[in-house]
Amino acid sequence: MSSWQSSVADKRKRQQESIPKEWTVPVPANDVSNVIRFPEQSGVMSSKELQITNEVDVQELLQKLASGQWSAVEVTTAFYKRAILAQQVTNCLTEIFVERALKRASELDVHLRETGTVVGPLHGLPVSLKDQLCIEGLESTIGYVSLIDKYAKKNSVLADILLEAGAVPFVKTNIPQTLMWGETFNNVFGRTTNPYNRSLTCGGSSGGEGALVALKGSPLGVGSDVGGSIRIPAAFCGVYGMRPSYHRVPYEGALNTLEGQDSIPSVFGPFSNSLSGIKMFMKSVIDLKPWRKDPLAIRKPWDEEAYKLSEHGEGKRLCFGIMRHDGNIMPHPPILRGLKMMKDALVNAGHTVIDWQPINHKEMNDTVTAIWGSAAREDFRVTTLATQEPIIATMLPPESETFSEMVVDPRYPEDGMTSFQLWQLHKRKIELRKEYLDHWEKTNLETGTGRPVDAVIAPVGPYVAPPHGRNRPSGYTRVYNLLDYPVIVLPVSQVDQELDAKAPPHEYLNDADMEFHEWYDPAMFRDAPIALQLIGRTLEEEALIAMAEIVDAALKA
Amino acid sequence: MSSWQSSVADKRKRQQESIPKEWTVPVPANDVSNVIRFPEQSGVMSSKELQITNEVDVQELLQKLASGQWSAVEVTTAFYKRAILAQQVTNCLTEIFVERALKRASELDVHLRETGTVVGPLHGLPVSLKDQLCIEGLESTIGYVSLIDKYAKKNSVLADILLEAGAVPFVKTNIPQTLMWGETFNNVFGRTTNPYNRSLTCGGSSGGEGALVALKGSPLGVGSDVGGSIRIPAAFCGVYGMRPSYHRVPYEGALNTLEGQDSIPSVFGPFSNSLSGIKMFMKSVIDLKPWRKDPLAIRKPWDEEAYKLSEHGEGKRLCFGIMRHDGNIMPHPPILRGLKMMKDALVNAGHTVIDWQPINHKEMNDTVTAIWGSAAREDFRVTTLATQEPIIATMLPPESETFSEMVVDPRYPEDGMTSFQLWQLHKRKIELRKEYLDHWEKTNLETGTGRPVDAVIAPVGPYVAPPHGRNRPSGYTRVYNLLDYPVIVLPVSQVDQELDAKAPPHEYLNDADMEFHEWYDPAMFRDAPIALQLIGRTLEEEALIAMAEIVDAALKA
Repeated sequence: MSSWQSSVADKRKRQQESIPKEWTVPVPANDVSNVIRFPEQSGVMSSKELQITNEVDVQELLQKLASGQWSAVEVTTAFYKRAILAQQVTNCLTEIFVERALKRASELDVHLRETGTVVGPLHGLPVSLKDQLCIEGLESTIGYVSLIDKYAKKNSVLADILLEAGAVPFVKTNIPQTLMWGETFNNVFGRTTNPYNRSLTCGGSSGGEGALVALKGSPLGVGSDVGGSIRIPAAFCGVYGMRPSYHRVPYEGALNTLEGQDSIPSVFGPFSNSLSGIKMFMKSVIDLKPWRKDPLAIRKPWDEEAYKLSEHGEGKRLCFGIMRHDGNIMPHPPILRGLKMMKDALVNAGHTVIDWQPINHKEMNDTVTAIWGSAAREDFRVTTLATQEPIIATMLPPESETFSEMVVDPRYPEDGMTSFQLWQLHKRKIELRKEYLDHWEKTNLETGTGRPVDAVIAPVGPYVAPPHGRNRPSGYTRVYNLLDYPVIVLPVSQVDQELDAKAPPHEYLNDADMEFHEWYDPAMFRDAPIALQLIGRTLEEEALIAMAEIVDAALKA
Repeated sequence: MSSWQSSVADKRKRQQESIPKEWTVPVPANDVSNVIRFPEQSGVMSSKELQITNEVDVQELLQKLASGQWSAVEVTTAFYKRAILAQQVTNCLTEIFVERALKRASELDVHLRETGTVVGPLHGLPVSLKDQLCIEGLESTIGYVSLIDKYAKKNSVLADILLEAGAVPFVKTNIPQTLMWGETFNNVFGRTTNPYNRSLTCGGSSGGEGALVALKGSPLGVGSDVGGSIRIPAAFCGVYGMRPSYHRVPYEGALNTLEGQDSIPSVFGPFSNSLSGIKMFMKSVIDLKPWRKDPLAIRKPWDEEAYKLSEHGEGKRLCFGIMRHDGNIMPHPPILRGLKMMKDALVNAGHTVIDWQPINHKEMNDTVTAIWGSAAREDFRVTTLATQEPIIATMLPPESETFSEMVVDPRYPEDGMTSFQLWQLHKRKIELRKEYLDHWEKTNLETGTGRPVDAVIAPVGPYVAPPHGRNRPSGYTRVYNLLDYPVIVLPVSQVDQELDAKAPPHEYLNDADMEFHEWYDPAMFRDAPIALQLIGRTLEEEALIAMAEIVDAALKA
């Protein structure tokens, strides 16, 4: 065993030891693919614990915590148990620190009992954190062997602000090595699977959050997104997720890969089983003025008028653009069905829906990839040099036959590029943003509202969660990282073997489109969730959340 | 004559022809150094034109325009005449388009007469624009021969927004080649001089604006600032100038050098002879929602509560930090006197003043220089390649004896650097911003207000306007470009031959500090204005303007 492998063995042993024995049970055999109901069937959780963890409305949960109806210790224990059960079937966690979380919960209970007041708007709420977020005294390996045994000297600013808000950070969650994959596998913790179908990926890079929240092992999770890393796992696992605009949520003091890549910054954002969780996260964090602690955080208070849709006709009659495909890859039948469900629901609710024409999506994707690639390889090399940990070249399982044409991920050039070359990409990037802005503004002639389209609805990718190793870089998400548009992922439905039968060939957009079409087989995607993106304008988080609430209500009606 | 020189000759001829003959007069001999009163003494302007152009309160001017007391044509004509007089003594203009501006003014007059309403908040106000701002059909050479004869196909977004606000763009102003100098000289238009003393530089890169506004040839000017390019000429020419935070004022569609250098973005901001001009510019531009047209413009409405100093105790008792020097170069006697005047004025007005300790200023400066240098040379080469125009290596006049040790401007490395190296600088840059933020936040223990220091007062540089070619890169300004702090330059006084006598040696901070000290001679800086920076927190433009009003009133009291 090499030195890096023994580090990993030790880390895994310590992780195993951090799990209370009484919360472990025999797990379903590997060939049981759908484990979404496992926590409820495990027998580990009391009926009250099930009641607590099944409360998906975070504002409701917070109210019960604030009134003392449920104590922070009760709530933390319930979610912790369920998180550990999630871990046993999907391997979604990294750091586990039960004692520390329960101590924090207990202190909050004492505070409430003694003062009659809550510590903050998230009083007593357990919050799961993507492994990048540091908590003093804990490791943040972000899936790199070289970071094992490095203990954080202080909290990330976002962790600090969540604590200030009264939250209880209770687990950290799994990611892929380098963070630059849309799946979740690394040499330290291994692979996270999709709880709806364990032969499928949970997505990535915030895949641990996706799996954990889907299993209701956390009421509110924090992930990050530089190219789709919140939206892909949220969609693949069927939960709500939000990618805010750059610098609306503080990143200061968190670990990251490609550090210094400021052209298209990674952002933190929430995962939850309800939009109430998304809203509570955003409002609580912004209300605590992150610009006091993060020099890049935008000084822009929560705008309640914007949330009331003051610039969108008070939300009475909205006009949505629906993008059926991005001009490159036609989505599979479940996604197209999701788009149709969405359209019908919105029209039924009295809103207008028009077609959204994508422009420059391919070039935007290529630009994002080139910017990352300007120094990605050197970044990976520097991080892995000391331990000689191998850099992972594919997310395919070792036992898998290699679909070489399906894992063509050109990734990044060996030698990067010069600053001057990078500047030319920046120049083009801004032009692309300007072209898309003008394109959006001009829709005011078609909406009938006098306004440009209020929000755009689009697939999160051309398929629902695919088998491990087969999620190609998704052009459907990273364009919005370049454009810096806030996006909320909304779960819509699940793959249905009859409704989502293979479609006849269409007029293919290109060879890859044909390949994707032929690849589809509903059996391969059994039970996978269907979700869509709702896309707003830069720094319009408040309005986007309000519109997501309208869309969500229409879908559920 | 080479091809590039004949291009220049042609361009200069066209410029000369664009000036109405009746507005030209014999100009003072070159050895008349102070020409600040030349427009009033020229005999070209009527007493009403002098009255109009001497109205330095922009809100007052706008009120007279809005009420029809003064027509837009009258006001534009008055400022145009004065601008042409300024041109004759300081060479501050690039594009001159009298007919076009008067036509616009006349249309505004018709609009007001016919509708009884103004077009926008800047109705009828002549506005001068740094040459980078494009106006459809006009050239924007930004001092590069290769851009002669290239006519803009559309307006820059900021020009568009100023038009929407009712302004009358009427001249464009001179800059240095490459824009990366703190003086103003290029091969196309030559050198701009300081109207208070023509042997001194007007500063740069927005030097044309500094000279023009100082001569009251424009009530409101627009410059840009990536390292001090608004603040240096504002200070050297004794006018108000503001560097807003990144992306508060739209940059889209303007020309620039080092395009794609997004690490430390250049920003546009106003020049004026009153803070009322600064405020009217900022509020008018922001109220017109630049984010509709510029994808990078921050969606952050003008915040009237912030302007009322809601986060600064309603401005009743402010605490200022005063930075006497930056730890590297001790300012010359006039600057130190300005700081003392400022401190006394603030204390007399009932505010608190404490010492501000600079941290990391040298490293911040080096980081800024390294980021620019990552590809600056290649950028300059690419732009000048076609015409073989020489890249200017010094701002010293050709007839000057070369003070080689005074023009040591290490400038930029020949070969730039790789993206990976640039990423490492970005990483350090963010750490430096975090350290300065924490440093500022911690002052709440010393202020006695319960708040951190409300604003910081600092020199704009270690000297007032120096002789041509002797303005070294100023560490005093570019640190705030890295930190992204908004800054307003406030004129304080003028060099006084008695009060600003040479000081005895102090304990030198380093060799350069000794050199600067020994260099000082009040006669060399005769009549030069003294100004200071007032520095606020990122994206706190509204509060900074309000605090500048308080400081300005205290100084004038």
